[in-house]
Amino acid sequence: MCYAAPMGTAPQTNSPLYVRIAESLTQQVARGALRTGDRVPSLRQLSRQRGVSISTAMQAYLWLEDRGYLEARPQSGFYVRAPFSALIPEPQFEATKTQPASLGTNAILAGMMESASDPANIPFAAGSASPELFPNRRLNLILRRIIRRDPFHSMRYDFPPGSEPLRRQVARRSVATGGGFSPRDVIITCGAQEGINLALRAVAQPGDVIAVESPTYFGILETAASMQVKVVEIPTHPQQGMDLDELERAIRKHRIKACMVMPNCHNPLGYVLTDAHKKALVELTARRNVAIIEDDVYGDLAFDGPRPRTLKSYDQKGLVLLCSSFSKVISPGYRVGWMVAGRYRADVERLKFLTTVASPSLLQMAVAEFLASGGYDRHLKKMRATLAGYVEVMRQAIAKYFPDGTRISRPAGGHMLWVELPPKINALKLYQAALSEHICILPGTIFSATGRYKNYFRINCAHKPSEAHDRALLTLGRLCEKAG
Amino acid sequence: MCYAAPMGTAPQTNSPLYVRIAESLTQQVARGALRTGDRVPSLRQLSRQRGVSISTAMQAYLWLEDRGYLEARPQSGFYVRAPFSALIPEPQFEATKTQPASLGTNAILAGMMESASDPANIPFAAGSASPELFPNRRLNLILRRIIRRDPFHSMRYDFPPGSEPLRRQVARRSVATGGGFSPRDVIITCGAQEGINLALRAVAQPGDVIAVESPTYFGILETAASMQVKVVEIPTHPQQGMDLDELERAIRKHRIKACMVMPNCHNPLGYVLTDAHKKALVELTARRNVAIIEDDVYGDLAFDGPRPRTLKSYDQKGLVLLCSSFSKVISPGYRVGWMVAGRYRADVERLKFLTTVASPSLLQMAVAEFLASGGYDRHLKKMRATLAGYVEVMRQAIAKYFPDGTRISRPAGGHMLWVELPPKINALKLYQAALSEHICILPGTIFSATGRYKNYFRINCAHKPSEAHDRALLTLGRLCEKAG
Repeated sequence: MCYAAPMGTAPQTNSPLYVRIAESLTQQVARGALRTGDRVPSLRQLSRQRGVSISTAMQAYLWLEDRGYLEARPQSGFYVRAPFSALIPEPQFEATKTQPASLGTNAILAGMMESASDPANIPFAAGSASPELFPNRRLNLILRRIIRRDPFHSMRYDFPPGSEPLRRQVARRSVATGGGFSPRDVIITCGAQEGINLALRAVAQPGDVIAVESPTYFGILETAASMQVKVVEIPTHPQQGMDLDELERAIRKHRIKACMVMPNCHNPLGYVLTDAHKKALVELTARRNVAIIEDDVYGDLAFDGPRPRTLKSYDQKGLVLLCSSFSKVISPGYRVGWMVAGRYRADVERLKFLTTVASPSLLQMAVAEFLASGGYDRHLKKMRATLAGYVEVMRQAIAKYFPDGTRISRPAGGHMLWVELPPKINALKLYQAALSEHICILPGTIFSATGRYKNYFRINCAHKPSEAHDRALLTLGRLCEKAG
Repeated sequence: MCYAAPMGTAPQTNSPLYVRIAESLTQQVARGALRTGDRVPSLRQLSRQRGVSISTAMQAYLWLEDRGYLEARPQSGFYVRAPFSALIPEPQFEATKTQPASLGTNAILAGMMESASDPANIPFAAGSASPELFPNRRLNLILRRIIRRDPFHSMRYDFPPGSEPLRRQVARRSVATGGGFSPRDVIITCGAQEGINLALRAVAQPGDVIAVESPTYFGILETAASMQVKVVEIPTHPQQGMDLDELERAIRKHRIKACMVMPNCHNPLGYVLTDAHKKALVELTARRNVAIIEDDVYGDLAFDGPRPRTLKSYDQKGLVLLCSSFSKVISPGYRVGWMVAGRYRADVERLKFLTTVASPSLLQMAVAEFLASGGYDRHLKKMRATLAGYVEVMRQAIAKYFPDGTRISRPAGGHMLWVELPPKINALKLYQAALSEHICILPGTIFSATGRYKNYFRINCAHKPSEAHDRALLTLGRLCEKAG
């Protein structure tokens, strides 16, 4: 069992300012100095009381709101809510000094690729969902229809920007993400990973520095390293995202060229940034003419409420390069991704030609027809509900089987859990012990360019819960004891 | 009309040594000092007479053999053949000093991509063949069969190295190219262009220098430039390929990291290197531990004789990275390419994951089944014969319609012609004038990193000859007059 006291009762001295302020407020709530329903000081008052900027005060309140201590009432202010009790504790925020680091290669990646092809392995590592979660039947009907209707479907290059009908469908859906761009803005890619590659090549040169979240998707770190682009890890809160004060400092200090950001269903942390955070992030980078590479690949898989907005939707200056794909929601094997590159559009189109010339025509057509046919939203609704259930089952099982002191992320979407083990447990040893039991997870260290997260791992929940999987989690929990 | 005296009667002072020797031998033939059937001096004698290396003597004889002046008799030596007369003259060899150059971007590329999607344009620019030349019907049958048999065909990532059945088929065919590699050596890519990208990233870092043929495929030059890799253009003979003496000098002088080579059906020159040349090239680079990136994308389209060997088949040290694809022979829109990366295999697999994660599963399966079904060789035989015919029709038309002094390549395979216009004609102006008549060609300058080939253009012949195309060539010929 790993239940523990709710977070925030013991201020952490290495937390950023807004977290320390937020935590002292929760202590006032705990002491009864502030009661449920009380209005807390206004942003301006808090800013004056603590001698901090309005932005830091705002971050403190948003942090408390996200954790259920406060609620915001439009046109009125923030009010004390009863804190949730008995939450499964989430991974802690660790603030660190940011510094650029050149990255090494990674053998774990090769292991992941190899193990993924063996059905004997428990597939908790690679980031894809079970085949039965995708709309296979409808896609196959569409493929057959295209082949019958247009036998020459694949006999030309669909040069960049790619299939016009697909670009039209992507643009049509952009209204729901708060954006609203035109088909001409969209460039089709071979998955979001190609998009991220092209974006990085468009905004940064070898030797340049970019800012990344910490932890962040390992593919981003390795891609940057392969291009000799250095990364600065910005302390990233498990629900609030990048520490904006630290980001601003890093931008000034390291002449950051771009920020890699996953605002929606972050991989591996699982959060969805609030709109206020998104806006603040875009405004901050825009002021300094820093590009944002936005990875929104899990954005359609947010569990609750309306489809979360993209950073792109706040972009006034064309500095946000939005990268996404249908790999997590329609088919991983189609390799159909897309991006909107703002002021870098012409460069990115050229680089797309130089990287893969074109994306496969048939699969672009198939996705376009699937989107046009109107079944996509129905499919998404079902997939989100299924994944939310799978994720919760895994959370409960890990909470049950893992040693005391284990903390588990509470994702707002996607299908990853980020698990923090007690500090004495080495997740790399756990990973290796698990592999020899045919259980594939990913150790936390590959989500950092500086070898952090030694006692963390990422686990993929997008598989129908089964006895075998439950047994695998029990085994993982037991292996923790030997991974000290 | 552009018929002229056969080449070689007037030695060119800026030609490399072996060409000058070869040309003085043809003068002896012309003067009657050597007659048809005479044995010419042995390589050793020639080497001693002229004070040159055996290798240079060999190059001189191979040059003469390729042009029809000599024939080689096994175990015996070289003999004088009657020179062909009334040949359409081929583009001249221009030797230049090699020097590294950083490359600029290219607007012509954007124009090519855009114009390709408009069916009103005459498609002589982009490098793809007419849709009806590909085995559409059989491929569609196979697609339907896979969809029926395996509805979950695309619901996983085919992580690098990619589909095993496809790699097995590629390896099975490698015997015919003189190679013989195993399925484990093969990595599936999104077309050969992705392969070239991965190869370049594996062997060269930003700031490094590579050697390229001159002229060479513009995609290579632009890709290198986008990675900040510098290129040295090695003088390249229209039939003998890179001048090996110059290459060796460049390797010594510029610390060349890799050579980009198209030994079979060169784009745009059209030659197939002799086996002796291939061997000499591989041995030269191997001695100096220089990698070769071999682009064999048109290799299956050599018009005559057995399938030409690859450079890879001479590779003893794992230094050759062979890149190929099925885009020119099965389907451009499938984006199925492959490579064999020798000692760079692990690096390339990792880079493939970081670039596009995986190639589309369904299309890999379809190509594998097409190759396994045995119809590929029959298809190739037909396609080669068709293309050889189309190319000849275009050659004759250009010879007829273009101004005196025009020289046209005599390709041994593929479907490109490289046309040298009289020096006073500006091919860039011709290109622009042609565009406004909806005729798309590619000006020679983009095939060079240093702005050479101002009076050259490349034309794609892989379309069924038609009155409209003939008229377009007539128009092009007339536009030459205004492009002075």
